[in-house]
Amino acid sequence: MYNKPRLLTPGPTPLPEEVRLALARDMIHHRKPVFKKILAACQEGLQELFGTKEPVLVLSASGTGAMDAAATNCFKPGEKVLVVEAGKFGERWREIATARGLIPAPLVLEWGKAVRAKDVAEAAAKHPDAVGLLVQASETSTGVLHPIQELGEVCRANDLLLVVDGISAVGISPCPMDAWGVDCLLTGSQKGLMLPPGLSFMALSQQAWERVEATKPNNFYFNLMAEREKIRTGQTLFTSAVNLVVGLEACLAHFREIGLNAVFQKQWAMTMLARTSAQAMGLELLAKEHFTWGLTSVLLPEGMDGVRLLQIAVDEYGVVFAGGQDRLKGRIVRIGHMGHVDWADVAAGVQALARSYQRCGGYIGCRDYLEQGLAAYENALTQHVGC
Amino acid sequence: MYNKPRLLTPGPTPLPEEVRLALARDMIHHRKPVFKKILAACQEGLQELFGTKEPVLVLSASGTGAMDAAATNCFKPGEKVLVVEAGKFGERWREIATARGLIPAPLVLEWGKAVRAKDVAEAAAKHPDAVGLLVQASETSTGVLHPIQELGEVCRANDLLLVVDGISAVGISPCPMDAWGVDCLLTGSQKGLMLPPGLSFMALSQQAWERVEATKPNNFYFNLMAEREKIRTGQTLFTSAVNLVVGLEACLAHFREIGLNAVFQKQWAMTMLARTSAQAMGLELLAKEHFTWGLTSVLLPEGMDGVRLLQIAVDEYGVVFAGGQDRLKGRIVRIGHMGHVDWADVAAGVQALARSYQRCGGYIGCRDYLEQGLAAYENALTQHVGC
Repeated sequence: MYNKPRLLTPGPTPLPEEVRLALARDMIHHRKPVFKKILAACQEGLQELFGTKEPVLVLSASGTGAMDAAATNCFKPGEKVLVVEAGKFGERWREIATARGLIPAPLVLEWGKAVRAKDVAEAAAKHPDAVGLLVQASETSTGVLHPIQELGEVCRANDLLLVVDGISAVGISPCPMDAWGVDCLLTGSQKGLMLPPGLSFMALSQQAWERVEATKPNNFYFNLMAEREKIRTGQTLFTSAVNLVVGLEACLAHFREIGLNAVFQKQWAMTMLARTSAQAMGLELLAKEHFTWGLTSVLLPEGMDGVRLLQIAVDEYGVVFAGGQDRLKGRIVRIGHMGHVDWADVAAGVQALARSYQRCGGYIGCRDYLEQGLAAYENALTQHVGC
Repeated sequence: MYNKPRLLTPGPTPLPEEVRLALARDMIHHRKPVFKKILAACQEGLQELFGTKEPVLVLSASGTGAMDAAATNCFKPGEKVLVVEAGKFGERWREIATARGLIPAPLVLEWGKAVRAKDVAEAAAKHPDAVGLLVQASETSTGVLHPIQELGEVCRANDLLLVVDGISAVGISPCPMDAWGVDCLLTGSQKGLMLPPGLSFMALSQQAWERVEATKPNNFYFNLMAEREKIRTGQTLFTSAVNLVVGLEACLAHFREIGLNAVFQKQWAMTMLARTSAQAMGLELLAKEHFTWGLTSVLLPEGMDGVRLLQIAVDEYGVVFAGGQDRLKGRIVRIGHMGHVDWADVAAGVQALARSYQRCGGYIGCRDYLEQGLAAYENALTQHVGC
């Protein structure tokens, strides 16, 4: 191997060395003081990350497990929920709602578009019996960022419980749940938190907890009320994925050291680097206005074989991108730039993309695309992005 | 710390160095060929471990998640199931059954006793409408081994689906599911497989799959039929706990190298070491006849403070035992000897137990208890235990 592997997918992300060393530590027991202390120490960092005063639950399951838990704990079978369906993960919300006996009222959008607050207001007017809204903060399949803060206002005004899949948003772009009126926010470990997959995190507002108490779900593994009791004692309800929690402590220590706003700033700047470079190359971006800060989706010209392009990128340049999913398969390249990724990784991604694109017959007129991207990166580092 | 920490609990267990190094490897993507290859390679080892030709599903959840998945996929709400309730985990089966709308018919036994095949036959006669039996292979809270092979015969004769929680049995003592007529066998990663917790494994017989197909559960995260489709392509349905799967490959390679029968032999011998030593000390064993091969539960004399004994063992000797749970809290010491534990670890546990016991006012007349245990260990290494 003369290329180092470079994972530029929207999760899992590369792991910092501190996390990898933490993962390799020998086992400790999940019911003994040494583990309780670590889990309790993580609470503070998780609450800051979620922007909440409520406890943040730690579930041993992937993010989809947390989505399933949210839908089944917050809503009763037969209840109607609005669902923003603007990509694969919006579809997943609808599938979960359907499987679990909720009545989904989908707001279907073109893949690549963000929902607008007024779309939700209109849907709420059309479905006065809806009790909640299921939405992604960042739709990972397209790279679109939905306007969660504005949706929070609409949901308040219409008495809708706002349930947000923050899987590729938390720790990547601001989503302070208490300030924005989010009732349930969840994420997975393998995105902004730069851990391996296997853990998910979830917090609920007072209003959401009241609904859970009234819903009395028949869940056993995903029993959020029982998890809330346990987390107060520095434990999880069932055996926790111990070494991932030990890694979490290392990750949260890193966030504490550099500050969440610095993380967001870096994410914003890398997004500018990727977007500006791709546009300078002549490529079209899938998410035009409302784009996430952890991945950039570029559209390939009609007729170009996107699967082959990805293969060239990994074989010749060592760069692992994600392709499109379902209807976008072969049509887009998703450049992940979240977690333990820096400007030089993104620059390598941009160059690998350009060269693979040319190998697939694409034409790049402008030779200083990377220079333009780096200038945008440096400029972005001076902009105000915090919240 | 002048003592090395020694984890002698019935899971999580210490981790082999190969596993720890595997856990520390940088991230790979769960939908790319490199991961699919690892997961596919693990299938063979998992099938040998489970003694089955059926696919072994890999769930990102703790063992309780797999129990929940088994109960909800194999049975419909309203169906009656016999439940062997001889400890905390038997109670958990009953709780899951109740939560999920099944009708549990519990066979309640004294904690420390194993169920007999004739008890199940009697219960089956009393409940001819029962469609399944939920039982542990090894009841971790007491250290009792239930007679799964015999239960397989009774279940066949009475048309009961046999669902076995093998959490502290698989990879510790024989439980070949196809040969013994087990319809659903499940386990967690942190016991015999000497990985951190966070993954569970599960296989179903043809008959069980037919039931799942008929049951059509409304599960989303724990959707076994969809998992079966995916595992055939070297993937899991949702994002897998990647680094635990990478660790699994290392563990299964170890099993392949030394052979499963050698693992069972070692487990049997360590059980003889622990039991013989404890009895030579004058301690009473909780599981008299039908005992598991991965832990030994010793009863403390009336009035002795078991919580204090455990604290002395860890503070003074670095040995972490598990105590009793629920009604056995403070009454027993559970010496775990599963996973990456060898004779010297168990010997250290025996000595730490003896000294902590004396510090709590216990009297040990016989001074060569450890010699007796080691002789039993060596003798056991020559006995036939395989299957």
